[in-house]
Amino acid sequence: MASAPHSTDPADLPPRDLCDAVQAVADGRSSASALLQAALTAADSPANARAYLRRFDAQARLAATAVDVARAANLPVPPLAGLAVSVKDLFDVAGWPTTAASRSLSAALPALADCPAVARLRAAGAALTGHTNLSEFAYSGVGINPHHGTPVNPVTASINPTPRVPGGSTSGGAVTVATGAAWAALGSDTGGSIRIPAALQGLVGFKNTQRLTPLQGAIPLSSTLDTACAITRSVRDAVLVHGILAARTPAPLRKPVHALRLAVPGTLMLDGLDADVARAFDRTLDVLRAGGALIEDLPLGALADLAGLQAQGGFTAAESWAWHRSRLAAQEADYDPRVAQRIRRGEAMSAADYIDLLHARSLWIARVQAELQGFDAVLAPTVPMVAPAIAPLLTNDSRFFAINAMLLRNASVVNMLDGCALSIPCHQPGQMPVGLMVWGPAMADDMVLGVGLTIEAALAAGESPARER
Amino acid sequence: MASAPHSTDPADLPPRDLCDAVQAVADGRSSASALLQAALTAADSPANARAYLRRFDAQARLAATAVDVARAANLPVPPLAGLAVSVKDLFDVAGWPTTAASRSLSAALPALADCPAVARLRAAGAALTGHTNLSEFAYSGVGINPHHGTPVNPVTASINPTPRVPGGSTSGGAVTVATGAAWAALGSDTGGSIRIPAALQGLVGFKNTQRLTPLQGAIPLSSTLDTACAITRSVRDAVLVHGILAARTPAPLRKPVHALRLAVPGTLMLDGLDADVARAFDRTLDVLRAGGALIEDLPLGALADLAGLQAQGGFTAAESWAWHRSRLAAQEADYDPRVAQRIRRGEAMSAADYIDLLHARSLWIARVQAELQGFDAVLAPTVPMVAPAIAPLLTNDSRFFAINAMLLRNASVVNMLDGCALSIPCHQPGQMPVGLMVWGPAMADDMVLGVGLTIEAALAAGESPARER
Repeated sequence: MASAPHSTDPADLPPRDLCDAVQAVADGRSSASALLQAALTAADSPANARAYLRRFDAQARLAATAVDVARAANLPVPPLAGLAVSVKDLFDVAGWPTTAASRSLSAALPALADCPAVARLRAAGAALTGHTNLSEFAYSGVGINPHHGTPVNPVTASINPTPRVPGGSTSGGAVTVATGAAWAALGSDTGGSIRIPAALQGLVGFKNTQRLTPLQGAIPLSSTLDTACAITRSVRDAVLVHGILAARTPAPLRKPVHALRLAVPGTLMLDGLDADVARAFDRTLDVLRAGGALIEDLPLGALADLAGLQAQGGFTAAESWAWHRSRLAAQEADYDPRVAQRIRRGEAMSAADYIDLLHARSLWIARVQAELQGFDAVLAPTVPMVAPAIAPLLTNDSRFFAINAMLLRNASVVNMLDGCALSIPCHQPGQMPVGLMVWGPAMADDMVLGVGLTIEAALAAGESPARER
Repeated sequence: MASAPHSTDPADLPPRDLCDAVQAVADGRSSASALLQAALTAADSPANARAYLRRFDAQARLAATAVDVARAANLPVPPLAGLAVSVKDLFDVAGWPTTAASRSLSAALPALADCPAVARLRAAGAALTGHTNLSEFAYSGVGINPHHGTPVNPVTASINPTPRVPGGSTSGGAVTVATGAAWAALGSDTGGSIRIPAALQGLVGFKNTQRLTPLQGAIPLSSTLDTACAITRSVRDAVLVHGILAARTPAPLRKPVHALRLAVPGTLMLDGLDADVARAFDRTLDVLRAGGALIEDLPLGALADLAGLQAQGGFTAAESWAWHRSRLAAQEADYDPRVAQRIRRGEAMSAADYIDLLHARSLWIARVQAELQGFDAVLAPTVPMVAPAIAPLLTNDSRFFAINAMLLRNASVVNMLDGCALSIPCHQPGQMPVGLMVWGPAMADDMVLGVGLTIEAALAAGESPARER
């Protein structure tokens, strides 16, 4: 019996996030196959035209069917319940080539095996839907890709007609989640590549402490900074997917708002915010203060030293030059010239400069960690601006590099810190997406996730009247 | 009442090793102060003239006195019982300068605090006797030092009148142990610097897995390869001192000889042995086979690739150039020219070459570890030759570098492996000292120590008739 079209029975609404969808399959309110079909239909929409580079529909359907068959036999439903998960085209998936969205790898052979991150998702019952587009070799926070085209930001499109960037480098992955083509997107974060597209598309991005998730079988950008992680729709989804990727049981430390002691950095991270970001960030702090949270200004003067540490291009330039130099020599014409130009910055770095950088990073981490003592987490805008328009960035290199540096500025601090960070939407409905970054030092993952759950709930409570309109 | 001069009551003999001396203090057979005085008297002998660069007699006496006072009050005797331990002049000792036996650091200010390795020895009740000589900046396995003179090998002196090298880089530390001026010598091992002098002077040297012992407050040679560890008189002393340096309780896996499965490498490590070394090594294998040990030839072809990995000077050149480059620019005239020349090899290395070396090392370690599966340990001569004469090496650079490479050849394999290794004397009494290296992969420390205890006992049993002569 079909329900009435205006029913508000929650059983009749589509699942609002991955956890909800898993529950719907476990309860028998939906089948995995029906939910997957809805995701594949969304993937066929024009909004996803440049999000997927290759689709795994047939094997995704098999994964969903397997869950439905198991459930019918009263076997346990796996944690991801046969639901759609997309994979950034950096991670090996058995039977498919991995190309880093680069023409230079267009002849890559199919991978012989899943990389560990993909294998963990598959073992947890994910329906892997396809390889998603990215900034070539993950080398920018903008998301522009000259080989496969740039996925348009699907969220800003309903607010402002100018096509805007999706954010990068996990550009396509974020679009699959924002459009309902996937519940979660596996990606990587070297300087913000999970959190920037999450922020610009109103999604959740969690960059865990690097050592917690496996990087083997993924094309590297910076072996020192790369982190395997995911974009989701909610913080609880981030907890679920992180637990699978890290093969551990996260225990988010959830305190009430009035018990939170939070820091706001006095250096770098609040500089030059655009009006939308400043308004959303200030309103978020107001909501938290109204709930009784203690929010303190923290100088964090060490953040001013980052530019100097990275003056030669930092770890990313040195390590990507090491990986690419023989490939560039053979086929530089198949690279995005902007990417090749940035990789080449690593050519001039000496071993001694690199070793000095490793030591300087250790000292810098110790300084920042000392200042963070006693705080539950630090708050800052994930990105200081809302999604910029695509067109001006296609032709103007200096504008592209300036915008890229601004997009990466705040998020990359956490990679240099070897820390962890969550980006949570903090804009009001109908406005341009803005991300709130909740961050902390290495291994503070469960604290950051717990604070994120609390803030997400506090912001939702503050907005519920608006949502009712 | 003085004992008869020919008594064989063990209570009347001087302690044979550190464990024995600790027991003597604990039992009240000796006082810590009396044992320390004997060590300081030995330190005054001509054999130690170039072993110590500075002596800490006054504070060493205080440490011994404190143990005697505590024992008189029935307080516990600390693990090192106020006994003499020397410190390589790379490790900070509060109140004393650290100079790495280099004229370039002759103006160094006194250290404000003990480095962690020294602090652990002091907290365990060591009487720290002084800073010992070394190859300048630990940069050779020979032990020649042009600034402070070269300590003559005190053990070979009684066998052959030609002054022979002490082995390096922990040259002075080994001499303090060989002459009775210390029961143990804190040192460092980057390519064999503990094991080579131990082998050439008939002592025990244990290079633990690097991550187990702290390196802070020690002047670095290669931050990737340096290991803080010690030279002792016996394997059980190595277990005792390692436990203190690592702040852990080692549990040596001790099997009987007939239960041992041991490997002998078919590549590199048995090439070009001199006659003394070949004889001692073969005899050792015979003793173990006679006891029922299974000894198998293992190809270990990966060892042949090490020379290629290190062609540019390896980690040591790159990392020492990073540390020294500003100092060399200011005062190269105060460096040993042979050391400066080797440090300069790191100048030409690019960051990408260094990163490639890190990756290549990881792959190489995996290949070697795979081949070691199932063996309790690997056996090889620590050094392929007995101690060479000093004189020809002072004037002839090419001869010096060739001998140095030969001295380091076997030992340095274990540093590149991130492994652990014990050097045990395996020559017969009255012959030139030869070291047997018992080695394994990272974190096999307790296995290697256990095999070492078993082999040491088996060799002693085989020699006891000779010792009766």
